[in-house]
Amino acid sequence: MLSLWLENQTLSVRTYVSEPILARGEALVMVRLAGVCSTDLELVRGYLPFIGIPGHEFVGEVTQSADDSSLVGKRVVGDINIACGKCEMCLSGLIRHCEHRKTLGIRDWNGAFAEYLTLPIKNLHQVPNTVPDEMAVFTEPLAAAHEILEQVNLQPGQRVLVIGAGRLGQLVAQTLALTDCRLDVLARHPRQRELLVSRKITVISEEDILKGKYEVVIEATGSPNGFTLARLAIRPRGTIVLKSTYRGNTEVDFSTIVVDELTLVGSRCGSFEPALELLASGKIDPRPLIEANYPLELGIQAFEHAARPGMLKILIHPGL
Amino acid sequence: MLSLWLENQTLSVRTYVSEPILARGEALVMVRLAGVCSTDLELVRGYLPFIGIPGHEFVGEVTQSADDSSLVGKRVVGDINIACGKCEMCLSGLIRHCEHRKTLGIRDWNGAFAEYLTLPIKNLHQVPNTVPDEMAVFTEPLAAAHEILEQVNLQPGQRVLVIGAGRLGQLVAQTLALTDCRLDVLARHPRQRELLVSRKITVISEEDILKGKYEVVIEATGSPNGFTLARLAIRPRGTIVLKSTYRGNTEVDFSTIVVDELTLVGSRCGSFEPALELLASGKIDPRPLIEANYPLELGIQAFEHAARPGMLKILIHPGL
Repeated sequence: MLSLWLENQTLSVRTYVSEPILARGEALVMVRLAGVCSTDLELVRGYLPFIGIPGHEFVGEVTQSADDSSLVGKRVVGDINIACGKCEMCLSGLIRHCEHRKTLGIRDWNGAFAEYLTLPIKNLHQVPNTVPDEMAVFTEPLAAAHEILEQVNLQPGQRVLVIGAGRLGQLVAQTLALTDCRLDVLARHPRQRELLVSRKITVISEEDILKGKYEVVIEATGSPNGFTLARLAIRPRGTIVLKSTYRGNTEVDFSTIVVDELTLVGSRCGSFEPALELLASGKIDPRPLIEANYPLELGIQAFEHAARPGMLKILIHPGL
Repeated sequence: MLSLWLENQTLSVRTYVSEPILARGEALVMVRLAGVCSTDLELVRGYLPFIGIPGHEFVGEVTQSADDSSLVGKRVVGDINIACGKCEMCLSGLIRHCEHRKTLGIRDWNGAFAEYLTLPIKNLHQVPNTVPDEMAVFTEPLAAAHEILEQVNLQPGQRVLVIGAGRLGQLVAQTLALTDCRLDVLARHPRQRELLVSRKITVISEEDILKGKYEVVIEATGSPNGFTLARLAIRPRGTIVLKSTYRGNTEVDFSTIVVDELTLVGSRCGSFEPALELLASGKIDPRPLIEANYPLELGIQAFEHAARPGMLKILIHPGL
């Protein structure tokens, strides 16, 4: 089948990758649409030593199922963490943190930039008919945005700042705007700012940051500089939510974190159910984030496009 | 009056420093006993640009009070943060994080390594008669240890690791041992290990750390290496409590904090009430931590003694 292949930090389009073989408990999914995420770009930059098909944001159709034929023909999205079900983390209910997990398109499991992928049936979530593919493909990053609300108990009236208004930052901003917090979003690029303003979200620039005044700051820039700004904005006893994954270390003055008694919370994947509900209810509409669509054959160009400064969502259509 | 003076990272014994002048709402306190803390040693190393009398752990006797003569003759300990009472943080109840605060012996306020100090009356706490000076002088660091329980909701049976068993680590270990968590303490020096074992606390070495298994890790080593160990020990979704203040930055891989969805909590000062209760009830007895006593004239030697590896508490007696 046709697929994008990542090896030695190099992407290539391959036509000769075999279709995945179905194991017990798994379904074969024909990918209808897949999104390029910052993590995909970081993988190409060597963030993790993944070899295989990248891509973890998708909506697809089940074409085969080893155990449950009723799934065939259904439109699905899928949780990207493939858990063992047996380790201490799984047994304690934290399956997304399984000690032996594989991760769709990121670690030891081929991903969505291909005609087909497989996932355990338990990872799949049916997409409501009212949610078109162009919305459903955002379920995974929207779940990651919604995870913030599961980790941090936002209070009405709290000053909250989102730093970075790219692919993930936009979804975070839309999600937090549904709460009663006082939200500011730091956005640099005109297109990012327009999208936020169109949703009546307050957009600010670096010089507008109320230093030391925000009770919660979300760092979603995808770069180490984001933390510097978060540190500047957060008030004592506040919470900084870390959303960016990138290669390399950041220099942190831990003493000031101790003195100001800050809380830093790492935040990765989230639950798909609330994300699908947000999409189905129309409370979140991620479609204006779509910048361009590419057929799978032009996957390398799609990645190049996604890597340009200020770019939002680039989609890849294996069926085009 | 006699005092220790810090200027340009140099300590000196001075006899000619004037006694402090009392302002409205303040009390004059004759220092009976003061403790040398790691922060004092860090101040000498240039952690903060303080000029004046260091020292913030003390027990003393009120000799004069501008507004409340009933305090005179009372034995007291004192909260080290001198708050303005008017800023946003003070008004929101977080007076220890006052935006304009001065800090006893640390920032803009002369400290306890002197015959006398002043503090606002509202900062003072009377010491119960059953608590001798040698215990009361530990109120401030014990409050800082107890702060962990106010910030992190420890559950029965949770695996908890304290890294570092020095001055503060010992008090943290004793405090956490009062809960129903499964506590391990990483201690390097024989004397530190003995003290913990005598209180039936499990002592481990670096090679015994259960990698990725602790739900809560307290970093109390006072050095950047402590964070590396904490990172090794913590399990996904776990909480690392940061207790150390030292000069300089630490290199942190934020991406792994995001992937593991860790929480980092900076923890500084705590409330004096629970600390005094722990001392009065005898649940905590810090006296075995006392390594040596020095008169104020030999304050420089006291600092040198405190800076030796593995040292616990060195006390300074202005009245000796």
